[in-house]
Amino acid sequence: MAAVALVQGASRGLGLEFCKHILLNKAPAAVIATCRNPEVAADLATLSAQHPGRVTVLKLDVNREDDIKNAAETVKSAFGKVDLVINSSALLHPSGKGETSLRDVSAQGVISTLTTNTVGPLVMAKYFAPLLQKGGGMFGQQPVEKAKQHSGIIVNMTAKVGSIGDNALGGWYSYRMSKAALNMATRNLSIELARSRPRIVCVSLHPGTVNTDLSRPYHRNVPKDKLFSTEYSVQCLMGIIDSLNIDKTGRAYAWDGSELPW
Amino acid sequence: MAAVALVQGASRGLGLEFCKHILLNKAPAAVIATCRNPEVAADLATLSAQHPGRVTVLKLDVNREDDIKNAAETVKSAFGKVDLVINSSALLHPSGKGETSLRDVSAQGVISTLTTNTVGPLVMAKYFAPLLQKGGGMFGQQPVEKAKQHSGIIVNMTAKVGSIGDNALGGWYSYRMSKAALNMATRNLSIELARSRPRIVCVSLHPGTVNTDLSRPYHRNVPKDKLFSTEYSVQCLMGIIDSLNIDKTGRAYAWDGSELPW
Repeated sequence: MAAVALVQGASRGLGLEFCKHILLNKAPAAVIATCRNPEVAADLATLSAQHPGRVTVLKLDVNREDDIKNAAETVKSAFGKVDLVINSSALLHPSGKGETSLRDVSAQGVISTLTTNTVGPLVMAKYFAPLLQKGGGMFGQQPVEKAKQHSGIIVNMTAKVGSIGDNALGGWYSYRMSKAALNMATRNLSIELARSRPRIVCVSLHPGTVNTDLSRPYHRNVPKDKLFSTEYSVQCLMGIIDSLNIDKTGRAYAWDGSELPW
Repeated sequence: MAAVALVQGASRGLGLEFCKHILLNKAPAAVIATCRNPEVAADLATLSAQHPGRVTVLKLDVNREDDIKNAAETVKSAFGKVDLVINSSALLHPSGKGETSLRDVSAQGVISTLTTNTVGPLVMAKYFAPLLQKGGGMFGQQPVEKAKQHSGIIVNMTAKVGSIGDNALGGWYSYRMSKAALNMATRNLSIELARSRPRIVCVSLHPGTVNTDLSRPYHRNVPKDKLFSTEYSVQCLMGIIDSLNIDKTGRAYAWDGSELPW
C-alpha cells in the first residue's frame, strides 16, 4: 500500500507546501489535507485536480476535539493507517501581531494561541497515534534492526522563538509560550510513543523565517537571504524528515538540521 | 514603609506556608493573601487573627483577568506598592490526576491546566508589574551599584517535571506543558522587566516534592526523605529569594539552589 501523509493546516503557507512537495516528490503517496474550511480552500482544490485520486481534503478545526476525532475515524475507514502526520497550523496571536510588551498581554489572547498551537497538535497525536501504529514506516529511515523500526512519524512545527534557552529578546508572549509547551508535548509524546509497539517517532521542526501570512507583518525586518520561500523551507524540512529514525525522536531540529536547545 | 508581599493561591499548601513564613520571619512585612474563596479560608483567618494588621485577604481567581485587575487596584489604593509577588496556585489536572498516557488527554483538561498554571501567573505579572516598580526592593539582595538594584521580585512556582531537557519519564502532559510554558513566561518577563526602570527580578522556583494536596495521590511512591514538609520547602525557597538580584533573574532554581535545565 502506498504511503499516506496527513497535513493538518494545509490550506496555505507551509502546510500547503508540504502537500505539494509530497505529491510531487513522494508519488504515489496519498495526501490527506485538513483545514478549517475546505469549501474555500482553492489551492487544495487545484492540487486535488492536478493529482487525481491522491488528495483527500478533510474539514478539521484543530481547536475542536470532535473534529479531530471525526477526521481520524474517516481516515481509518478510508486508509486504515497513516505514515506521517504534520501539525502545521499556528497563529502568532489572535490579533495577528505578537505582544511587544506585557501591556499587550490578555488572558484570552494567550489561551487562544495555546489552544491552536499547542493543545491542537497534542490532541491530534491522541487520535492519530493508533493509525500511525498501523503505518508502514514509509517516511524516515528504517534501521536494519527490526526492533528499532518505526511505523509512523509525527512532526510538530515549532519555532526558534519557542526555545526558552535561546530567548534573548523577549516579547511575543503567547507564541513563545505556545511553542515551548508544544516542545514539551513533543518530548512527552516521543517518550510514550517510543515505548509503544510499533514505535512512532515524534519531533519538533523549526522552518526558519518563512514568507507566510503568519510572519508577514515582520518581513521588512528580516534580511532578504534569511526570509525563506515556503518551497525552500519545506525542501529542507523534508530532508530532515527523510533522515528521521527512533534514535532521533524527541528533539527539536531547525531547517538546517541543527538541534535547537529547549 | 514596611515590605509588602503578595501570595497568590494562599489558602493552602505552599502558598499558605509562604504567608506564615513571611509573617514570622519578615516582620513587620505586610502579607496580601489571595485565594478564590476568602470566606472559607479558615487558615488565613487564623493567620490574620494571630498577626493583627499585617494580613490582607483578597478574593482572586487567577483564571479571571477581571479579578486580577481588581485586586491590583485594591492593592494600589491600600499599599501603593508591592515588593514581592509569589504565584503559587496550580493544579495537576482538573481530575486531580496527571495523565499517565495519551488516552487520558483531553483538550479541555489541558486548557484548564494551562489557564490556571500558566496564563494566570502571566496576567498577574501584567497587572502587578507597575506596583512592583513602586516597590522598595525589600526582598532579595541589593548590589551596591544603584543601576543594578531592583524594586521588586516575581516568583513563579514551577516544577522539575516542567523541565523539557530533564524529562525522561513522560506522562503528566497537562502539568508538564503548563510548567514549560510558565518557564518561558518567566524568561520573557525577566527580559522585559530587566529593561524597565526600576528593574524587576523574575524567576521560576521548584519546591521539591512537597506534602500538599496537589501531590497527595502520589505520596506512596515518594521515598520519605524526598517528601518535604511545606515548612522545609518554603524555608529553602525563601533562602533563595533572599539571595536574588538582577544577575540571577530569568532562571529556574530548585529548592536546593541548583539551576534547572529548560
